[in-house]
Amino acid sequence: MSELINLIDFIRKEFNKSLNTFSLPKDPKYLYDPIKYSLKSKGKRFRPIIVHLSGRNFQCDPDDLMKVSVGLELLHNFTLVHDDIMDSDDTRRNMPTVHKKYDVPSAILAGDGIFTISQLILGSIQNNSNHLLQKYNEMVLEICEGQALDKQFEGEDNLNLDDYIEMVKKKTGALLGACLSLPALISNENSEKVNELYDAGKSLGVGFQIHDDIFEIFGEESVIGKSLGSDISSNKNTAIAIVAKKKNKVEWSNLTNQFDGKDLYKIRKFLKENNVKTKVENVADSYFLSAFNSLKNIDIDEKNELYGFFKMIQERSY
Amino acid sequence: MSELINLIDFIRKEFNKSLNTFSLPKDPKYLYDPIKYSLKSKGKRFRPIIVHLSGRNFQCDPDDLMKVSVGLELLHNFTLVHDDIMDSDDTRRNMPTVHKKYDVPSAILAGDGIFTISQLILGSIQNNSNHLLQKYNEMVLEICEGQALDKQFEGEDNLNLDDYIEMVKKKTGALLGACLSLPALISNENSEKVNELYDAGKSLGVGFQIHDDIFEIFGEESVIGKSLGSDISSNKNTAIAIVAKKKNKVEWSNLTNQFDGKDLYKIRKFLKENNVKTKVENVADSYFLSAFNSLKNIDIDEKNELYGFFKMIQERSY
Repeated sequence: MSELINLIDFIRKEFNKSLNTFSLPKDPKYLYDPIKYSLKSKGKRFRPIIVHLSGRNFQCDPDDLMKVSVGLELLHNFTLVHDDIMDSDDTRRNMPTVHKKYDVPSAILAGDGIFTISQLILGSIQNNSNHLLQKYNEMVLEICEGQALDKQFEGEDNLNLDDYIEMVKKKTGALLGACLSLPALISNENSEKVNELYDAGKSLGVGFQIHDDIFEIFGEESVIGKSLGSDISSNKNTAIAIVAKKKNKVEWSNLTNQFDGKDLYKIRKFLKENNVKTKVENVADSYFLSAFNSLKNIDIDEKNELYGFFKMIQERSY
Repeated sequence: MSELINLIDFIRKEFNKSLNTFSLPKDPKYLYDPIKYSLKSKGKRFRPIIVHLSGRNFQCDPDDLMKVSVGLELLHNFTLVHDDIMDSDDTRRNMPTVHKKYDVPSAILAGDGIFTISQLILGSIQNNSNHLLQKYNEMVLEICEGQALDKQFEGEDNLNLDDYIEMVKKKTGALLGACLSLPALISNENSEKVNELYDAGKSLGVGFQIHDDIFEIFGEESVIGKSLGSDISSNKNTAIAIVAKKKNKVEWSNLTNQFDGKDLYKIRKFLKENNVKTKVENVADSYFLSAFNSLKNIDIDEKNELYGFFKMIQERSY
C-alpha cells in the first residue's frame, strides 16, 4: 500500500511539474489571466493519477501519456469554471471562483479558452490521434448532457435514483472513463478493452459521487475542508435526499426545512434509523463492485496499482 | 455575375438542406432545445458559401467539404451564443438571443455543446484529420483572443486603429481564414497555399468588419434590417470612432453625447467633412486589396468564383 502511495505522490509531482512548465501567452490578459488563475487551484489530481496508472498497463509513450493527463485535467477545469457560473457558486477549493474573482464574461471566455487548449494538447498526440479526439469529444458531449440533466433535476420533487445515477454517469463518470480509456486508445488496444475501461470509469464515477453525497452529511468538517449540509440547505437532489424522500417525504421535508445550516444531528439520526445511509452506501458499493469487475474483465486485478487506487477511492473519507 | 449568384443560391440551399437533415437528440431538453433554437436562426451563410467556393478550387471530397462548412457554421453559432451573453445583447437577427429566450446557464451550456458537436463533425473527416483539427483549434483560440481584446478595448479612450485591426483579424478574420484554408487542408495542398488562404481570410475579415462599422452609421435601415447608431449610443470603439476621435476628440465627444439614438445627420456631416468616412473606406479597401492579392498569389484570379464572391462582399450594402 505504501508503495502505491509513493507512486501516486510521484505521479502527482511529475504532473504538477509538467503543468507548471506549460507556458501560456501573457496577452491578451483578459483571456489568459483568468485561465492562469483557474489553473493555480490544484485539487487532488485524481484524474491525472488515473490516466497514469491506467497507462502503466499499456505500452504508452510517456510524453503522450502526460499530454493525455494534462488535456483531461484542463477539460475538468473548463467544466468547473462554467459549472460554477451556472450554479452561482462563489468559492471552490477555498478560493473565489473565476467569475467571482473576475466577472461572468471573463469566466465564460476563460472556460472556452481552456477547453480549446485542452483540444490542442490532445491533438498534438500522433498515435491514433483521430480516434482519440473523437472519443474525447463524445465524452465532452456526455458531460454537457450530464450537466443539463443536473440542471433539469433542480427542484424536481419526485426524482428516481436511477435517473440521478444516469446523470452522474454522464456528468462525473464520463470523464473518469476517458481518463481510463484514452491511454489504452493511444496504445491501439482493441475497442473491447477501451470500452470496458470507459464503463469502469462510469461506475467509479457513480460510487465516487454517492460517497461525496454521504460525506456532505456524515463527513467530518475538518477532514472534508468545507462546511457540511449545503446540499440540504439548497434542497439539492442527491442520492441521500432521493432515498430519504422515498422513505418518508413529509418527515424529510420537515427536517430539511428546520435545518439551520449547522446542526446535522436530527438529519443524521433520521437517515440512520430509516436505513437511508445503509441503503445509499450499498448502492455506492454496488457501483464500485461493477468498476472492479470491469477491470477484472481486462485482466487488471487486485495486484494491479490501478485496482489499488480504485480501492483507495472507495475507502476515502474526504 | 448572375451565374455566380445562382451558384451561391444553390450552395446556400444545399447547405441549409444538409443542416436540416442533421438530427440532434431530443433529450436532455435543457441542452438540446436551446441548441436547436440557436440553429434555427439562419443568417446569410457567408461562411459556408466561402467554404464551398474555396473547395471548388481543390479536389475536395464533397461530403467532407459539406462537413467542413457545417462544422464551421456551428463554430460561428457557438461564438455568437457566448458573445451575446458577454455583451448582454438581447436580440440577434430579430430574435431573442439564447440567454434571453432561456437563461444564462442554458446558453453557456448550449454554446459548449455546439462547440463540441462542431469538433465531432470535423473529427469525422478522414482526410488529413489531425492537421485539420489542430488548425481549427488554433483558429478557435485566435477567436477567443480576439473576443478578449474586444472586451479589453471597451471604454478605452485612446485606442489605435492598428490595435483595433489586430483584434478584428482574430475575432472575425480567423474564422474566415479557416473557411478558406480548411478545404485546401483536407485536399493535402501545401502549407504555403493553406497559409495564404488563411491570410486572405484575415484581410477579408478586416474589410468586412470595417464596412459593417460604416454601415452602422451610413447604411439604410431598411436595407440593414436594424436600427442604426447603436455603436455610437454604446460608445463602442469602431474604426469610425477611432479615426473620428483622432481627428477631433472634443467635437466627436460632444456629437456622440448629444446623439438621441435616432438622428445621425450631424454625425454623418462631421464624418464626411473631416474625411473620416473616406479615410476609413480607404483602410477597408486596402484590406480587400490585400485579400485579393493573397488569392492571386495562389493563382485564384478575377475569373474565379471565389474571387467574384470576395468582390460581392466588398460591394455589399448591407
